[in-house]
Amino acid sequence: MATRALLTDEELSPEAQAVFDDIRATRGSDFVNNFWRALAHDPALLRATWERLKVVMGPGALDPLVKEMVYLAVSVANACEYCTHSHTAAARAKGMDDAMHGELLAVIGMASQTNALANALQVPVDEAFRA
Amino acid sequence: MATRALLTDEELSPEAQAVFDDIRATRGSDFVNNFWRALAHDPALLRATWERLKVVMGPGALDPLVKEMVYLAVSVANACEYCTHSHTAAARAKGMDDAMHGELLAVIGMASQTNALANALQVPVDEAFRA
Amino acid sequence: MATRALLTDEELSPEAQAVFDDIRATRGSDFVNNFWRALAHDPALLRATWERLKVVMGPGALDPLVKEMVYLAVSVANACEYCTHSHTAAARAKGMDDAMHGELLAVIGMASQTNALANALQVPVDEAFRA
Amino acid sequence: MATRALLTDEELSPEAQAVFDDIRATRGSDFVNNFWRALAHDPALLRATWERLKVVMGPGALDPLVKEMVYLAVSVANACEYCTHSHTAAARAKGMDDAMHGELLAVIGMASQTNALANALQVPVDEAFRA
Amino acid sequence: MATRALLTDEELSPEAQAVFDDIRATRGSDFVNNFWRALAHDPALLRATWERLKVVMGPGALDPLVKEMVYLAVSVANACEYCTHSHTAAARAKGMDDAMHGELLAVIGMASQTNALANALQVPVDEAFRA
Amino acid sequence: MATRALLTDEELSPEAQAVFDDIRATRGSDFVNNFWRALAHDPALLRATWERLKVVMGPGALDPLVKEMVYLAVSVANACEYCTHSHTAAARAKGMDDAMHGELLAVIGMASQTNALANALQVPVDEAFRA
Repeated sequence: MATRALLTDEELSPEAQAVFDDIRATRGSDFVNNFWRALAHDPALLRATWERLKVVMGPGALDPLVKEMVYLAVSVANACEYCTHSHTAAARAKGMDDAMHGELLAVIGMASQTNALANALQVPVDEAFRA
Repeated sequence: MATRALLTDEELSPEAQAVFDDIRATRGSDFVNNFWRALAHDPALLRATWERLKVVMGPGALDPLVKEMVYLAVSVANACEYCTHSHTAAARAKGMDDAMHGELLAVIGMASQTNALANALQVPVDEAFRA
Repeated sequence: MATRALLTDEELSPEAQAVFDDIRATRGSDFVNNFWRALAHDPALLRATWERLKVVMGPGALDPLVKEMVYLAVSVANACEYCTHSHTAAARAKGMDDAMHGELLAVIGMASQTNALANALQVPVDEAFRA
Repeated sequence: MATRALLTDEELSPEAQAVFDDIRATRGSDFVNNFWRALAHDPALLRATWERLKVVMGPGALDPLVKEMVYLAVSVANACEYCTHSHTAAARAKGMDDAMHGELLAVIGMASQTNALANALQVPVDEAFRA
Repeated sequence: MATRALLTDEELSPEAQAVFDDIRATRGSDFVNNFWRALAHDPALLRATWERLKVVMGPGALDPLVKEMVYLAVSVANACEYCTHSHTAAARAKGMDDAMHGELLAVIGMASQTNALANALQVPVDEAFRA
Repeated sequence: MATRALLTDEELSPEAQAVFDDIRATRGSDFVNNFWRALAHDPALLRATWERLKVVMGPGALDPLVKEMVYLAVSVANACEYCTHSHTAAARAKGMDDAMHGELLAVIGMASQTNALANALQVPVDEAFRA
């Protein structure tokens, strides 16, 4: 159970409703996931988060699937259960197949391991890496 | 300063030297960065880490630059100073330009923000995300 | 399920019972939450944790509600599900209303985002910030 | 050294210059700290981060000093060296005295300890905490 | 529910089956826990993880129970629910009794607290600690 | 530089001086490391932290070196630079040799990797692990 009740469509304020309308239009789907329903108690935070997400995850120099996999990797490192589920689903929807998923997991695992080793050893940064 | 002294080439055991030889051959460069010099006190750990890294970051279903950006994102989330420097340099070397770097930062920042919000709200996972 | 069974009042050692008595007297409530029931296997750890908590969260230079919101913010950043629930409830009980809750979430999200950006950029600390 | 060079005022693009102008006007000070100078390579990310920060940390239901202390607490939990320095300085500037600083540290330490204990024990959330 | 379906013995590829055979032989038990069933979609990652785990947790300079308690402590600090449960069970199976469990929890809690304090204070490393 | 100035012996309050006296007597050494010098601004927090540390790290069911290695492992996972240095030095002083250090690093690295994999896969806890 969330620390704030998930709002149904009927319980939304007009400001939150407007954001939900945009989520639906942007995604071309009637489904609005629980994250937004928990945020909807605070329409200003809901709008700011959604508007920023649209820009950050929108078209740009990086492929949308790459962005989604990076998002997932960060979510795993931050131990966010909800985000791990939602961004795995999103990456799958954007084309991540079994082989890509497996390699992504391997990179996340490898990075976590060497992050720990480098922190344990307190390795000084090579001059060559300082641009 | 590292918690274990960085070994110079002259101080390497034969087992560690063999790994350094492979690092140099694989990368086509004489430069061996400090991470390996700190690990070299323990040739078995050095070899296992390097051998695994070669496989994980080698050719596969994901583009090498994508893997490098995921590695960097995880390193940032884990607050690893060394890894953030080394993998930023590696991603740059593999083709990450200013625009891609900027977008990567934006995705990492966005994910960190919504990870915190989802954890704060303890949002229950939608049934739709459970495959 | 906890990694150690939650103890009922009937299962407490006399030492643990004495701590539970103090929790109830201090809070003016018969309710003792699960955290203490899991800790009660080790009366010395139970007592040390409770005694310290009483001091830290007691009257002082900071408002009790402020302390509770800081506690909640740290718990979110550390991805502690139990603590996020318990300290959200505690903050609510001490007067955190919907608007305050929304702003607290916004600050936690903002901090998490800029923490990630500053770590990703490895920004050197300004001389002006070094007192 | 940062992973991206800190930009001097002379090196700013017009878009980044406009954000710096607003930072200076809002704060009533000519000083612009390194975080913004590292972000300035990407004027869109710079603007989005600054604009959001202004809103989140601006007047509202929570006291500005409370917001600053929450920001600091999250930065500590996320092991962000830069943010810990900058937000300690900011909290001091907004009125955090020695006694408040000491209590803030005590709460952060206490929360970190019980977060670890609750995670180690995997304590199930009490029904009473589920609103 | 996992982000990848847990594979039953009947669903394993021959490569994954071979790893499961070795897990069973090594442990002298028919039970294969869910972690391996989720990894089994990617036999190469499954094998690499299992082979490395066998080496790392095998006989050496540190007692097997000590390794298990260190593993558990890291899992708690990384907020891994699954690993906290599985390595608590493993440590119990290797001889961790109630008193040892209690002391382990106390050390984890103490370290988490002073980690936060040291990070909050940004304490410079003493020359005496730099070998 | 620390966020609070490190206090010299001459700058200590009588209450802080008394704690320093006990640190010196307990350790049988005149050296008091920077952590305590930064905490000494707040004698109550200084005393509470030191008194608790003495109990937690004192004789008990676990070997002092084991406790020190667990402390180090948690410090690495929490990305605490200061604590990683100080507890590596402490573990060395208590008998951790090169081989033990190497194995400890390997366990920390392995745990960090499988923590990430288990979180990425959101593996459900086996019934067998729930006592």
